[in-house]
Amino acid sequence: MDNLAAKAVENLENIKKNKPLIHNITNYVVMNFTANVLLAMGASPVMAHAGNEVSEMAAIASALVLNIGTLSDPWIAAMMTAGRKATELGTPIVLDPVGSGATTLRTSTARAIIEQTRTSVIRGNASEILSLSDAGARTKGVDTLHSVDEAAETAKELARALNTTLAITGAVDLVTDGVRVVRVANGHPLMPVITGSGCAATAVVGAFLAVDKNPVTAAATALAFFGLAGEKAGARAAAPGSFQVALLDALYTITPEELGQKCRLSGD
Amino acid sequence: MDNLAAKAVENLENIKKNKPLIHNITNYVVMNFTANVLLAMGASPVMAHAGNEVSEMAAIASALVLNIGTLSDPWIAAMMTAGRKATELGTPIVLDPVGSGATTLRTSTARAIIEQTRTSVIRGNASEILSLSDAGARTKGVDTLHSVDEAAETAKELARALNTTLAITGAVDLVTDGVRVVRVANGHPLMPVITGSGCAATAVVGAFLAVDKNPVTAAATALAFFGLAGEKAGARAAAPGSFQVALLDALYTITPEELGQKCRLSGD
Amino acid sequence: MDNLAAKAVENLENIKKNKPLIHNITNYVVMNFTANVLLAMGASPVMAHAGNEVSEMAAIASALVLNIGTLSDPWIAAMMTAGRKATELGTPIVLDPVGSGATTLRTSTARAIIEQTRTSVIRGNASEILSLSDAGARTKGVDTLHSVDEAAETAKELARALNTTLAITGAVDLVTDGVRVVRVANGHPLMPVITGSGCAATAVVGAFLAVDKNPVTAAATALAFFGLAGEKAGARAAAPGSFQVALLDALYTITPEELGQKCRLSGD
Repeated sequence: MDNLAAKAVENLENIKKNKPLIHNITNYVVMNFTANVLLAMGASPVMAHAGNEVSEMAAIASALVLNIGTLSDPWIAAMMTAGRKATELGTPIVLDPVGSGATTLRTSTARAIIEQTRTSVIRGNASEILSLSDAGARTKGVDTLHSVDEAAETAKELARALNTTLAITGAVDLVTDGVRVVRVANGHPLMPVITGSGCAATAVVGAFLAVDKNPVTAAATALAFFGLAGEKAGARAAAPGSFQVALLDALYTITPEELGQKCRLSGD
Repeated sequence: MDNLAAKAVENLENIKKNKPLIHNITNYVVMNFTANVLLAMGASPVMAHAGNEVSEMAAIASALVLNIGTLSDPWIAAMMTAGRKATELGTPIVLDPVGSGATTLRTSTARAIIEQTRTSVIRGNASEILSLSDAGARTKGVDTLHSVDEAAETAKELARALNTTLAITGAVDLVTDGVRVVRVANGHPLMPVITGSGCAATAVVGAFLAVDKNPVTAAATALAFFGLAGEKAGARAAAPGSFQVALLDALYTITPEELGQKCRLSGD
Repeated sequence: MDNLAAKAVENLENIKKNKPLIHNITNYVVMNFTANVLLAMGASPVMAHAGNEVSEMAAIASALVLNIGTLSDPWIAAMMTAGRKATELGTPIVLDPVGSGATTLRTSTARAIIEQTRTSVIRGNASEILSLSDAGARTKGVDTLHSVDEAAETAKELARALNTTLAITGAVDLVTDGVRVVRVANGHPLMPVITGSGCAATAVVGAFLAVDKNPVTAAATALAFFGLAGEKAGARAAAPGSFQVALLDALYTITPEELGQKCRLSGD
């Protein structure tokens, strides 16, 4: 087992042992699924979005997940408040810029979160990630217009410019902090056919960040774990309804040892 | 295969080919299920409800779904803004007047949307649809007090009065623009036992409107497709938990050809 | 069959016969699951939270469910308005103080609801319930720090002080109005691994309150029913995804007679 696989084992063990509290300010569509994903893998999810509550909740959480999938002004304000509190306390933040590039509100909110908080990881598809740069491209809703390969060269540069770690998911996921690059080959074609699989991946990254302060290894091992769950689900189910059920089951049943054996991580 | 069945085939083919972006401003209860339904059938769902975002989102969407199931003033304002933008651009709008007739807020909001926007189709149960007329009846929550048959005679008249197409769902669905009437016999008794099956049917109508500018054929073929998925689910599952899973699977696996063979559409 | 079992049979029969309308003002995470639980068991769920709608909805409902899992100021105001209307009309109210003790906003809101409305039942885990007293303990998110046994002695005292019935769920559930104590042994270890199982239990209590004006027997028989559904699901499923599906199926298929035979209720 190489170093990345060993790290994957250690991270999943620590999540199951510590059951870290993950504070999610996320979109309405995926809240239920996100909570079920975090519970199934052994973490403790909490959702809280009120301006007069988020600082207190962020302060007791081990990681903060910010997801801009269904924005409105009070939620943006709450994300900023929680994000600043987490930044102040050194609590890791993971951002999911859902649909950034599709509307002005989403692009500007994603950029404002990046500027005003210290995001450990940003997880999105290639279009969303590219929209975070000034050379950004418009995205079509939450779909992907650019391939991971197209994005690979600019990803390192963008990670350095934004001073964060980028986790760009696609057929093969790419994680980079601007220096190191790790690729994750786990996954299944049915994953994008269920809503919130990307958002759930982001929350899984949050849980891994709660036990692994290195954003590159946390994000890469998280995506390997989530992708492996997709592979196991895909072996049981051939359509999205039963696939989603099997995915939750797999997140619950995959052991750290199995993750170590079946994760497909490669890095420089 | 008759004309309606041929249209059903063509519409589902075009959805799978074009993956139209469907903008939903819908209720909290059904957002996840609605998104999964649209993804399973091959469309691209997006949810966006902020007043400062909906015009932009509506402008890039191929259809707009307005659903009043969990209203509040900011959401009503956003529905109006998005609806006016869609009207201006000629983008088809489908309205789901959930619970109209049960409270003043719901009835008045449904009527205001009808007055201030150009709705291509209104999809509801008989009580909800009847509440849209001045002779409207109070509904009990989101349940149906009136049968489809009771409503049939007034439906044509009401469609003409409201200058829209009505899709009244029940044991047999009825679609009318005030002139033409199409009945859809597909469906399954477990459908009303899962929450959001009506709301999901409305979103499916939205996806069909994105590829078929004739509201009567779009709504009727959409309801045949959704009802057929219910039939296939009912053949696999005898209780609502597994039925919902099987329904999503069926929406993914039904081919245009199968829809053409098994749709039960009859019209004058 | 003893008196409690006979009451369980009668209550479930009446729910299936009367299909009571249950008005839920609940959190975003569990809305879909809660609605599906209520539909599967034969009740009629409705969700409504607008300040200008909740009085009217509460007035036509047979029970009101207040759940503070994802609060914000407008929702708190709506809960108060609906709660006061239900109190005025004698409609039973069940409160779920999700995460009370974890943040100031949650604790103060739970206490305000208790002070300003007439709650028939409060359903929570031991930490949440204990936080409602001035001697309350901080909770860790929505997790349980105190066992049901730890809480048993103080529960009767607290029920008297709050003038309500407490339903404290855990491995064995405890229901008390300060005088009578009923314990419910039904349940399954996978229940806390799916999000919203506690919230759904609260909604089930609401449905039982709609047909049984005695809060102790309503809450105890409701928890026995929901716990039995968990047992049946656990016999079919070994992981949370398929467990949740099987739970909804069980809520639909359990007959009043089966509940009478398999409920495990014991009281003084």
